Amino acid sequence: MFWVHVDRVQFPAPRLFMKKVVTIGGGTGSFMLLSGLRKYPIELSAIVSMADDGGSTGVLRDELGVLPPGDVRQCLVALSESSDILRDLMNYRFANGGLSGHSFGNLFLSALEKITGSFSEGVLEASKILNVKGEVIPVTATDTSLKVKLADGTVLSGEHEINTSKLIGKIGIKRAFLAPQAKANKKAIEKILSADLIVIGPGNHYCSILPNLLVEGIPEAILKSKAKVVYNCNLSNKRGHTDGFSLDDYVDEINGFLGGDRIDFVTFNTKKASEALVKRYKQKDGGLVTFEEEDRARRGYRVIRADLLSRIKTKHDPSDKISAERSFIRHDGERLAKVLIMLLELGEYESILRDIV
Amino acid sequence: MFWVHVDRVQFPAPRLFMKKVVTIGGGTGSFMLLSGLRKYPIELSAIVSMADDGGSTGVLRDELGVLPPGDVRQCLVALSESSDILRDLMNYRFANGGLSGHSFGNLFLSALEKITGSFSEGVLEASKILNVKGEVIPVTATDTSLKVKLADGTVLSGEHEINTSKLIGKIGIKRAFLAPQAKANKKAIEKILSADLIVIGPGNHYCSILPNLLVEGIPEAILKSKAKVVYNCNLSNKRGHTDGFSLDDYVDEINGFLGGDRIDFVTFNTKKASEALVKRYKQKDGGLVTFEEEDRARRGYRVIRADLLSRIKTKHDPSDKISAERSFIRHDGERLAKVLIMLLELGEYESILRDIV
Repeated sequence: MFWVHVDRVQFPAPRLFMKKVVTIGGGTGSFMLLSGLRKYPIELSAIVSMADDGGSTGVLRDELGVLPPGDVRQCLVALSESSDILRDLMNYRFANGGLSGHSFGNLFLSALEKITGSFSEGVLEASKILNVKGEVIPVTATDTSLKVKLADGTVLSGEHEINTSKLIGKIGIKRAFLAPQAKANKKAIEKILSADLIVIGPGNHYCSILPNLLVEGIPEAILKSKAKVVYNCNLSNKRGHTDGFSLDDYVDEINGFLGGDRIDFVTFNTKKASEALVKRYKQKDGGLVTFEEEDRARRGYRVIRADLLSRIKTKHDPSDKISAERSFIRHDGERLAKVLIMLLELGEYESILRDIV
Repeated sequence: MFWVHVDRVQFPAPRLFMKKVVTIGGGTGSFMLLSGLRKYPIELSAIVSMADDGGSTGVLRDELGVLPPGDVRQCLVALSESSDILRDLMNYRFANGGLSGHSFGNLFLSALEKITGSFSEGVLEASKILNVKGEVIPVTATDTSLKVKLADGTVLSGEHEINTSKLIGKIGIKRAFLAPQAKANKKAIEKILSADLIVIGPGNHYCSILPNLLVEGIPEAILKSKAKVVYNCNLSNKRGHTDGFSLDDYVDEINGFLGGDRIDFVTFNTKKASEALVKRYKQKDGGLVTFEEEDRARRGYRVIRADLLSRIKTKHDPSDKISAERSFIRHDGERLAKVLIMLLELGEYESILRDIV
């Protein structure tokens, strides 16, 4: 027991008093979320999917035998407090010749893995060089691959094949697993167990969120942790994967992956995108995620409804030859972070949240 | 006019009082020299050859249309005060797949050139990221190529072809030039004009030193500068290029490139390498550079004789598939730097140097 004179406390507050936030995800969803969260005085840990095998990352895995750098790179850049140039450099993609499509940041992480002898060490060194706020933690150090067995017995192998297949939505998943089975990084478990807030998603449901929850030790730790668990539901469905999913469908699946009804809060965007955009999403993608308040009499979780929609129009980068095209209806990182920090700060006054819902 | 109280001067001494040293070269010669010089409180500018078109650098020039990063990278690493890991990273070469042979640092500089829009801007940003002491200045911003016309009319094109050709030594050079003609970077001229000491070499005579002296404005500035000019003569001759050259032959050629007898001092190594090594150099390379004190009654330059030999055995890096094998009789950067700093500090007491010679 010790005393602290409040008037001597320096701002930003010392680490001792900072609340602990753990995010779980991968890809652009985590990038957006972390870009918003990094501005707040919290102790931030980003647990990142390690099952990517497409694009630049897939080529590096095949040719250099490294662990997948792509998702980690995005989180490092989101949390980097370096110059804009250094952040731009990490996302830079070569446009010509043998390097075409490779992200510079992926090469950076792969070279550091080779030099230090382990991916985790490489990520630590990268974090120093990039002056990263918080910590980026690969969910596992196992060199593993995502597999999905469909109801008809078909097995889809690797995140890239799964991501591009339309069979999942049609046939349905019987079982999803990692091969070889992956063990969680010790640090990921520690951070989850000591967290005040665990934030799952947003992100590609089967290819960014699921590969985290399939890692041995992760669901167990989330179930055991005393943290509040928030799930940031995606804004749109993915054609061939989650067509016609409602918010409740997503939560049911996530709770299923976790092996228990552990989600405390779910965020849902109330701001409408333009009609033209919504129409395009219906035609090209799996449409927008729906939420009907009356659908269930008693949910085991509270839904926080807020304007979470990004106003920024992001264009497909033509130099990005390896990676897939990105969608346009997205979360706004700053809005989402604000809602999450509010939730964290409200603490025992959570009941106030009833007004928001 | 202003006064400074000596007892208030802080160490390291402010920039105002630091002597200005300019090095001119490229490749491993400059790396070694700058690694030694960076430990001294001097204002250091490294002017670097921009004619490389072999190895990883050549591939990047061809495929990405960038300026050659290889020589600049080596100088940046030599002057970097960052962690060893970051320095190792810059020299790391990928060993497999489509990236095989590429130096990570070359990709780093090429990506920065693309992002900033100019090679010089890219080098400045790289210098910040790598915490570089002093300044690395590409000798020119012109995208140029080294050409050599031999006495029989044959034209050798590009540094790589020239470096690997054995014809120069046999037939002799009629004319060497850059195509297109390259203009010196303004900053290179400024640094040369205001220098206290200009250090030329060591380095590949025709492929690292000459391409600097062929740039329009460089020889003129050296002739005009009030700096002392030191030439660090190579330790060994290059077969097919400078077979049988003595120290005087090198100096004559350098003065020829400069268009005037401008060399004030020449360093010469007096420490003998092992007999086996010397024998190997005679058989495989062009033998060691000779110096006979009596050869000339009156030299226009003074020869500083000292133990300049490196004791470190450097091995050929097997992962470096693109670049050529390196030699083993080398300068010791720390010894060479010591001699140069002594020369710089002696100032008006240069006559003391007579004892060394």
